Amino acid sequence: MQVVTTQFQKVVFQWPQGFYSDGIHIGLRQTKKDFGWLFSKVPAAAAGTYTTNQFQAAPTKLTQQMISQDHQLQGLLLNSAVANSCTGEQGWQNALQEQTWLANKLNVDPELIGVASTGLIGAQLPMDLIKNGLPQLTPTKSDAVTYAVLTTDKKPKTICVQGELGGKLVTITGFAKGSGMIHPKMATMLGFVTTDAQIAGADLQHLLSEQVDQTFNQITVDGDTSTNDMVVTLANGLAENPVLTPGTADYQQFAQALHTVLSALAQQIAADGEGATKLVECNVTQAATAADGQQVAKAIVGSNLVKAAIFGEDPNWGRIISTIGATKADLDIDQVDIAMNGMPLVTASLAVPFDEAAVKATLGQSRVVIDVNLHHGVASGQAWGCDLTYNYVKINASYHT
Amino acid sequence: MQVVTTQFQKVVFQWPQGFYSDGIHIGLRQTKKDFGWLFSKVPAAAAGTYTTNQFQAAPTKLTQQMISQDHQLQGLLLNSAVANSCTGEQGWQNALQEQTWLANKLNVDPELIGVASTGLIGAQLPMDLIKNGLPQLTPTKSDAVTYAVLTTDKKPKTICVQGELGGKLVTITGFAKGSGMIHPKMATMLGFVTTDAQIAGADLQHLLSEQVDQTFNQITVDGDTSTNDMVVTLANGLAENPVLTPGTADYQQFAQALHTVLSALAQQIAADGEGATKLVECNVTQAATAADGQQVAKAIVGSNLVKAAIFGEDPNWGRIISTIGATKADLDIDQVDIAMNGMPLVTASLAVPFDEAAVKATLGQSRVVIDVNLHHGVASGQAWGCDLTYNYVKINASYHT
Repeated sequence: MQVVTTQFQKVVFQWPQGFYSDGIHIGLRQTKKDFGWLFSKVPAAAAGTYTTNQFQAAPTKLTQQMISQDHQLQGLLLNSAVANSCTGEQGWQNALQEQTWLANKLNVDPELIGVASTGLIGAQLPMDLIKNGLPQLTPTKSDAVTYAVLTTDKKPKTICVQGELGGKLVTITGFAKGSGMIHPKMATMLGFVTTDAQIAGADLQHLLSEQVDQTFNQITVDGDTSTNDMVVTLANGLAENPVLTPGTADYQQFAQALHTVLSALAQQIAADGEGATKLVECNVTQAATAADGQQVAKAIVGSNLVKAAIFGEDPNWGRIISTIGATKADLDIDQVDIAMNGMPLVTASLAVPFDEAAVKATLGQSRVVIDVNLHHGVASGQAWGCDLTYNYVKINASYHT
Repeated sequence: MQVVTTQFQKVVFQWPQGFYSDGIHIGLRQTKKDFGWLFSKVPAAAAGTYTTNQFQAAPTKLTQQMISQDHQLQGLLLNSAVANSCTGEQGWQNALQEQTWLANKLNVDPELIGVASTGLIGAQLPMDLIKNGLPQLTPTKSDAVTYAVLTTDKKPKTICVQGELGGKLVTITGFAKGSGMIHPKMATMLGFVTTDAQIAGADLQHLLSEQVDQTFNQITVDGDTSTNDMVVTLANGLAENPVLTPGTADYQQFAQALHTVLSALAQQIAADGEGATKLVECNVTQAATAADGQQVAKAIVGSNLVKAAIFGEDPNWGRIISTIGATKADLDIDQVDIAMNGMPLVTASLAVPFDEAAVKATLGQSRVVIDVNLHHGVASGQAWGCDLTYNYVKINASYHT
């Protein structure tokens, strides 16, 4: 196997060539930005992954239809506060109306326009506010749009990397929102990645689908899968690199960079889970299959009891091993090792003496790492979550009203 | 189909003929009862259902082996505080030692003795305390044993019903513990049902397995499946009713009474979920299959977002419909009705105007009922859970230390 050293580096937030966006306040939320757009000056290759919830929201359904046709998209209209989900025929017509309005403003075919909404389920979009807001959107290079999609998020999730492909500078910029109702299968609520790389839409879709499984689909905040989830990636080709072709070193470089971007956004979402004080990472090694590794990792970061113990800075490994046993993963039940922040707690499924004060001290940090070795194969899996806190309950006991 | 009017009535707590028990404090917990026994003066027909967690605890494994041999059991030794789970060969030997000690005390074959433990995972049983405690157990008719199995439970869960079968008075008495790590598949942590009815062990097992699926397996507090779960039923035949035979009216009467007992215990466990302030009941009707109905009902009472909303007394139906959509149940996505405490919130998957203040007022009660009509078949399903509160987080952030 060819070893590829990734040459992509993290850089300060900026948009790839030819991408413009804006985020403003139009009155959907009380004072915060709640409306935005994102577009490329030329049509971009496009890929998406979408919620598996049977009640898929109208904007998600519409964007999925547009991208699936020919893997091309040029612009997206975005809003927070109102999810346009479970809104019936009226909701669908409103999504189509938004599409038409943005197509007219950009003077492009409506089939190149997607829409994305996040917020409360069951309410209709206030179309008068959106109609009035549309002329106020300008083509900026700011990061305002990354604020316009937030709901209970404490801050935007962004990442930007740059590297050279075929002698051309390529930028990949991602942003996401998602704080509650996060148990993606697929994707968290909303994620967007833009790049000026040249790549065919079908290849971009293949890469995105594969990598979302290892990143966005491996985070959980509360085990609930939203109706609006989607991750959309746009590649407008303005970097003028030779078209990325599967099997080449450049393609692999790009794949690794995209993985970095998706993984960083996924971890930022988990760290900013509703009420969270800590990011929890679980690395499972020596699993029988990658699916087993991912299943075990996700079960651990998804367990309410584990999450509450980590909030309490309590190395309660019994809850971890019980969670492992409750999965369908193929196990050797006498061979499981568990460590927390690098300190062994369990070896061969039995307690080992450990310095509880030392472990507790490390659990005060903002990142907790749980390592599980199943000693039952050569595959691995990763997942990310957060602790379960008083504030999670507080936020979710009073979101609606 | 023959309609059977159940003649079993709820009565004040008492043991069936020939059953004795005790519960005492031996120092496993700080001051509360932590050790007990339960036995029949003659061998009883026995049935059990056990955790599906791959790390099945030693006592659960031992009791399962004893009952599976010939569906007979005479006595059980019980303790709280220490689960004897993930304790390796030493833990298994300790469970066997307990079995031998109780067999000697009762002067019966060890194969007629089961053991049950609940509490912290990973610690060995303090065998000296148990050895010293054993002689202190006396054959009482009190309810002390129902206290000896509690951990974070606020109170014991008990029910007693009586009725006539074949001209003989039959008593069925059940008790259970379970407050956290409750997402039975199968059973909650520990449940015990005793009766003086005469019934073959195999028939008792069939009845128990079938009914646990509709009762204990349909409750959830936190989505975690314990390593120690079991429900054990003992029938000693001392009521001298004609042996209950499948297909007869008496058998069906007994089955209904057993269902009443299991369902009552399951609901008491859910209502006493860690930190809970409310019991949440979900009734799903017109599902395509019973499995779909049960799946949807359990998903709703298991959703952290729904649970937090109910704690906040917030009729946030968006979270309910999103949870329904996240299941694999066969749905007509335009036909779902949702009501809370009898008041319609959603009809044909769309919001209906409702008096929010009136719904909120009913959500202040200690029992919240969510009715879901899928309009997609003739099957139904039920599940029970509780709200997610600050106290759940508090209890579980500090249980270990």
